[in-house]
Amino acid sequence: MSRQFLAEGLELSGGDYGVVAVVAVVALAALAVGYVLLREVLAAGQGTPKMQEIAKAVQEGAAAYLKRQRNTLSIFGVVVFLLLFALPAEGWSERIGRSLFFLVGAAFSFTIGYLGMWLATQANLRVAAASREVGGRETAMRVAFRTGGVVGMITVGLGLFGAAIVVLAYAGQAPKVLEGFGFGAALIAMFMRVGGGIFTKAADVGADLVGKVEQNIPEDDPRNAATIADNVGDNVGDCAGMAADLFESYAVTLVAALILGSTAFGKDGLLFPLIVPGIGVITAVIGVYITKARSGENGLVTINRSFYISAIISAVLCAVAAFLFLPSSFAGFGADHASIGGNPAVIATVSVIIGIVLAAVILRLTGYFTGTEHGPVKNVGKTSETGPATVILSGISVGFESAVYTAVVIAAAVFGAYLLGGMVALFAVALAGTGLLTTVGVIVAMDTFGPVSDNAQGIAEMSGEVDEKAAQILTELDAVGNTTKAITKGIAIATAVLAATALFGSYSDSIAKALATAGQAAASLPATFLNNIVSANTLVGVIIGAAVVFMFSGLAVNAVSRAAGAVVFEVRRQFRDIPGIMEGTTRPEYGKVVDIVTRDSLRELATPGLLAVFAPIAVGFGLGTGALAGYLAGAIATGTLMAIFLANSGGAWDNAKKLVEDGNHGGKGSEAHAATVIGDTVGDPFKDTAGPAINPLIKVMNLVSVLIAPAVVQFSIGPDASLGVRIAIALVAVAVIVVAVVVSKRRSTVIAEPASEKAEPAKAG
Amino acid sequence: MSRQFLAEGLELSGGDYGVVAVVAVVALAALAVGYVLLREVLAAGQGTPKMQEIAKAVQEGAAAYLKRQRNTLSIFGVVVFLLLFALPAEGWSERIGRSLFFLVGAAFSFTIGYLGMWLATQANLRVAAASREVGGRETAMRVAFRTGGVVGMITVGLGLFGAAIVVLAYAGQAPKVLEGFGFGAALIAMFMRVGGGIFTKAADVGADLVGKVEQNIPEDDPRNAATIADNVGDNVGDCAGMAADLFESYAVTLVAALILGSTAFGKDGLLFPLIVPGIGVITAVIGVYITKARSGENGLVTINRSFYISAIISAVLCAVAAFLFLPSSFAGFGADHASIGGNPAVIATVSVIIGIVLAAVILRLTGYFTGTEHGPVKNVGKTSETGPATVILSGISVGFESAVYTAVVIAAAVFGAYLLGGMVALFAVALAGTGLLTTVGVIVAMDTFGPVSDNAQGIAEMSGEVDEKAAQILTELDAVGNTTKAITKGIAIATAVLAATALFGSYSDSIAKALATAGQAAASLPATFLNNIVSANTLVGVIIGAAVVFMFSGLAVNAVSRAAGAVVFEVRRQFRDIPGIMEGTTRPEYGKVVDIVTRDSLRELATPGLLAVFAPIAVGFGLGTGALAGYLAGAIATGTLMAIFLANSGGAWDNAKKLVEDGNHGGKGSEAHAATVIGDTVGDPFKDTAGPAINPLIKVMNLVSVLIAPAVVQFSIGPDASLGVRIAIALVAVAVIVVAVVVSKRRSTVIAEPASEKAEPAKAG
Repeated sequence: MSRQFLAEGLELSGGDYGVVAVVAVVALAALAVGYVLLREVLAAGQGTPKMQEIAKAVQEGAAAYLKRQRNTLSIFGVVVFLLLFALPAEGWSERIGRSLFFLVGAAFSFTIGYLGMWLATQANLRVAAASREVGGRETAMRVAFRTGGVVGMITVGLGLFGAAIVVLAYAGQAPKVLEGFGFGAALIAMFMRVGGGIFTKAADVGADLVGKVEQNIPEDDPRNAATIADNVGDNVGDCAGMAADLFESYAVTLVAALILGSTAFGKDGLLFPLIVPGIGVITAVIGVYITKARSGENGLVTINRSFYISAIISAVLCAVAAFLFLPSSFAGFGADHASIGGNPAVIATVSVIIGIVLAAVILRLTGYFTGTEHGPVKNVGKTSETGPATVILSGISVGFESAVYTAVVIAAAVFGAYLLGGMVALFAVALAGTGLLTTVGVIVAMDTFGPVSDNAQGIAEMSGEVDEKAAQILTELDAVGNTTKAITKGIAIATAVLAATALFGSYSDSIAKALATAGQAAASLPATFLNNIVSANTLVGVIIGAAVVFMFSGLAVNAVSRAAGAVVFEVRRQFRDIPGIMEGTTRPEYGKVVDIVTRDSLRELATPGLLAVFAPIAVGFGLGTGALAGYLAGAIATGTLMAIFLANSGGAWDNAKKLVEDGNHGGKGSEAHAATVIGDTVGDPFKDTAGPAINPLIKVMNLVSVLIAPAVVQFSIGPDASLGVRIAIALVAVAVIVVAVVVSKRRSTVIAEPASEKAEPAKAG
Repeated sequence: MSRQFLAEGLELSGGDYGVVAVVAVVALAALAVGYVLLREVLAAGQGTPKMQEIAKAVQEGAAAYLKRQRNTLSIFGVVVFLLLFALPAEGWSERIGRSLFFLVGAAFSFTIGYLGMWLATQANLRVAAASREVGGRETAMRVAFRTGGVVGMITVGLGLFGAAIVVLAYAGQAPKVLEGFGFGAALIAMFMRVGGGIFTKAADVGADLVGKVEQNIPEDDPRNAATIADNVGDNVGDCAGMAADLFESYAVTLVAALILGSTAFGKDGLLFPLIVPGIGVITAVIGVYITKARSGENGLVTINRSFYISAIISAVLCAVAAFLFLPSSFAGFGADHASIGGNPAVIATVSVIIGIVLAAVILRLTGYFTGTEHGPVKNVGKTSETGPATVILSGISVGFESAVYTAVVIAAAVFGAYLLGGMVALFAVALAGTGLLTTVGVIVAMDTFGPVSDNAQGIAEMSGEVDEKAAQILTELDAVGNTTKAITKGIAIATAVLAATALFGSYSDSIAKALATAGQAAASLPATFLNNIVSANTLVGVIIGAAVVFMFSGLAVNAVSRAAGAVVFEVRRQFRDIPGIMEGTTRPEYGKVVDIVTRDSLRELATPGLLAVFAPIAVGFGLGTGALAGYLAGAIATGTLMAIFLANSGGAWDNAKKLVEDGNHGGKGSEAHAATVIGDTVGDPFKDTAGPAINPLIKVMNLVSVLIAPAVVQFSIGPDASLGVRIAIALVAVAVIVVAVVVSKRRSTVIAEPASEKAEPAKAG
């Protein structure tokens, strides 16, 4: 970090402002393309009145959930806004900008989630309708993928636009303001991931336990009171949560690159990381428009082709941009950089390509481990012949193994960029992150494809107005969606590692600056401030960081179980108390179940959310910055493995079930099928609740640490040093976590009670 | 590490030799007490001829397995002996001593495992026989616990004797030789844990899948060809593997304390860490002799009381020893230490007490999370009413949650000792480890109790010569054993963290010495040698370290599935090809199944074993010492959480099944029971294969790192520096791992093939 304070005297020239303004215009153009795609989606046919009626119920439920979530999160947002305002800052401009753009980031994150959800509820109906027409497969696939295109364009458009505006408005102070922007995006995305994840899986598991297991009626049967809630869940979890999450990945990675870039290269470091994702916008548009289903070709092949083509175009354009905008030696950056060897344009190009290649490798790895045509899922399917226990064990093995390979590949990318970068190693890592970003537009489009197809299938099933051929089309699209969803999660977690590694530099920088302010040299720090990993203090931090990931995962899984329990009791009650449901003569009260899941999932997201924000505060103030650095490393490492393990185990179980349903190992209704249904149910909260929420979790904890680091130093050294204040803050943070955990544990007892109410003992699968 | 080279000029006075000699005599006395207890156990009644016949078959199978394992491990031992011999050393005495005591540690580890197993096979029969007598409960419990006492005495006796001999023989060079001793113990223990763990669970799961699930015959039914193998497994896994593991925990923790002690305090630092476990020997004898079952009292209460009484006695005696043997100020250690504040006797006392209290807290935490009378297991039992999926999810939640609390408690103990120790922080951590060691004698006795009761039940069941009252006694003892087994695993992993933290100091020391030899200052190291955790390079190490733990766990679980598959095919074959088995007129060929499991488990242990040894070599030589430090931190943190997660999930599932079998939620034969059986089957490889093997894994990787550190430095800096050599070594290590993984993956296909042979499709549970 020899060049750590360079960014301060940073001034942009008129030409630089011009480049940033062009990037901002590109970002707005992305939004315009999104609008054009949106018009196209909305223009598609809307099917029969019955289908529309069902879609409307889902739309209303989803909108009601997000409205209540917005109210809950607003309170949280205001509190964090004030806390952020109170943290140390250099001058009022930085203080106000940081808090203000925290709100902007949060608002963008929420808006994208909301739009993603709204759009999906519109598209579901249209995809279901398209499947009934002549040439339905191609139309359905186009509508689904274009819907994803809209979300993708909004994600990259708003992310890039926000960052460009901050750079235009704040120039040299941009890094600090960007921290606020990224933090707002990550925090809201985490809540939307957790809340949506609990909603979708509580409704899904609850619906299955009573419907499929107890009453023996098929999935999405309209007699099941939880069906609408289940379909609402697909939209608020897989669409809203996912869109917010990918926006956050985009924003935070970009923020990390800009912060590191300005530190390493001054203004060129602010410009180039904006140009790369700008190129990504262009290639994403190409990727969305070239995706055309060919008859007889698996949908995944079509989508993968678009991905590869746009990735290659990105790589070429980025190389051109690097040689146009960056000098060919470090001497070009002035006397300060003259001693650094290597060619900045080459380093930047290779770093960006590392990021793009990383995305492609994760795509292939995830496809291999969760796709129905490869060994791992086939093997899980085979173990269904010896019962559910072997299905669970083989799925867990697949998850562990794939997590290892993916983590090692991510680590190799980080290490490669790091070696390549030499003196500007962390910036090279961040540039690899921006390389990854160029693929985000297409990735979002791929991911949205999944829940939209899933929901279209639900609408088709419930309306009963779709023939067998159309149903077949929708089932195929749904299976493709399972794999694209798993791929997105892998890529999202890769952005988390790259961004977090880069933010580590920002963390050191914050501490060094704060020490300089306190007039203290790093060498005279108390022992608990050492970052040396070979120290008990740092090691303790690593252990606690790993522990928080386990805690967070456990809380999320538990929250699903609890909320699903409440759904089970309500659906049972309706079957018992409302006559005529089973005969199909009376409509169940769908709204009641939606209300219950809405209430429970919003209540349940508090504990993991508080844990994410307050654990780094407790460690930082309580144990010092060395332990906090260890904490981050532990959380990143364990979080990466856990996130992929959970996502891929879940994906493998889901597709193993599909394999059996396709007639293997005895087919639907066999004991083998029952075994894979159990695997799938276990995998549901793994892959859709706990797993994907770990990505924003890592970023929230990183950004909290970067933001509080100066305050920790301030209370530890120099005139304001006070062990009492530090311990008081740490104790408050610990108390918040303990109270949150205890409250959520008490809830478990309350909800479990009505079990005695049920008419007869539940039957196991 | 300001005092890092102090140990070199170390000379012991005559009086010091006297103290060490007394410790050696105490160690021999422990062995003598073990012999007395052994005579008592062997003198107990041996039951009916039919019982003896069964016990004999089990004894023979277990002995045959260990004999073949000894042959396999001998080859491995010789290879490592030679590699160790080739590593850099200061002079021939160190080089020879290190390799020689590697063999001694390995031999001790194997011997204790062998004796533990042999003794258990003797004791099983006698406990089963005792249960048939008047006052059977008290006698059975006494025999089982005294058997544990023998193993406990041998464990502490040989561990302490070995360490004392090294100190007597090598004085100043003892630390390097002790590294060899600890490494030998840990390496063999890891193989015995992995091999035994695969054996026991492959036989168990295989027997259950055909017997209980397909043929609907009870557990331990003599018509099942895998029954004897299942009972052999209990002995080679739970007894031999566990005994070797605890010996290794004892030896490595002691080694770490001696290394750190000599660095911090010279000869006093070599003496005091020997005195503390010496005291532990005395209190363990007391603990074993005061354990007497009271009628109407739960066996766990009896055992816990003995633990607490001996822990309190240990604490008091250690405090007395600290004030007798340590000076009251650091000035007592000479001018070099004069500036250190604090009272060494107080620091030592409090550190030891931290270790003892840590053991007690883990005992309570584990008891809470896995005991049948507390909330968590009751809750898992309750979820059995909604089927296997909810049982799996709730058990996983219990595992995650308990892992977090246990890891945080361990971290708190490390941090407490670290803050307390000031300038001698790592030594304080190591002393906390020796405090923990004072409880090992009783802990081993507690643990052995579990498999002995389990096996006694098996013999009773198979012989059919035990009445209902006696069977009830054995069932109660077995449930107590489930919890004591989980407790031992928690304590073993705590020793891993304490020892590893302390060994971190030794790692730094090795590097500093090697740098001094190369005439290089740490400041001028290449970037990949920095230990700063806020560096991409170290972070990459942390990720890889965490990944290796996931890989190891996945490999172990997979190995069980594969080996269990082979058992399933063989048992099915016997039922099909040998007429009269099902009618009970023909005896199945038990020996064949034992042979198959023996062959498979020895073959399967190679891959995880090679991973443990070669992964640190690849990281160290390939990425540098900074990444290797990160690697260790990642492995320790993730390993701790994963080990406890696996152990406690498994324990909770096992006891939830017992809850249902006791008549709750529908009792035996209900759907709820089937759901808990599935949970228990999933938990089997978790708690008895993957989970417990992580403890020696961590220590093996730590010791490999400490041992190779000088070589890494040698090839990186100074006259011998060669990037080519480093990369070549790293590539060889990576190649070994890749080949091992690929070979084990191929095996999976071969074994799965005969599935087509079976007469009719298997039925799922």
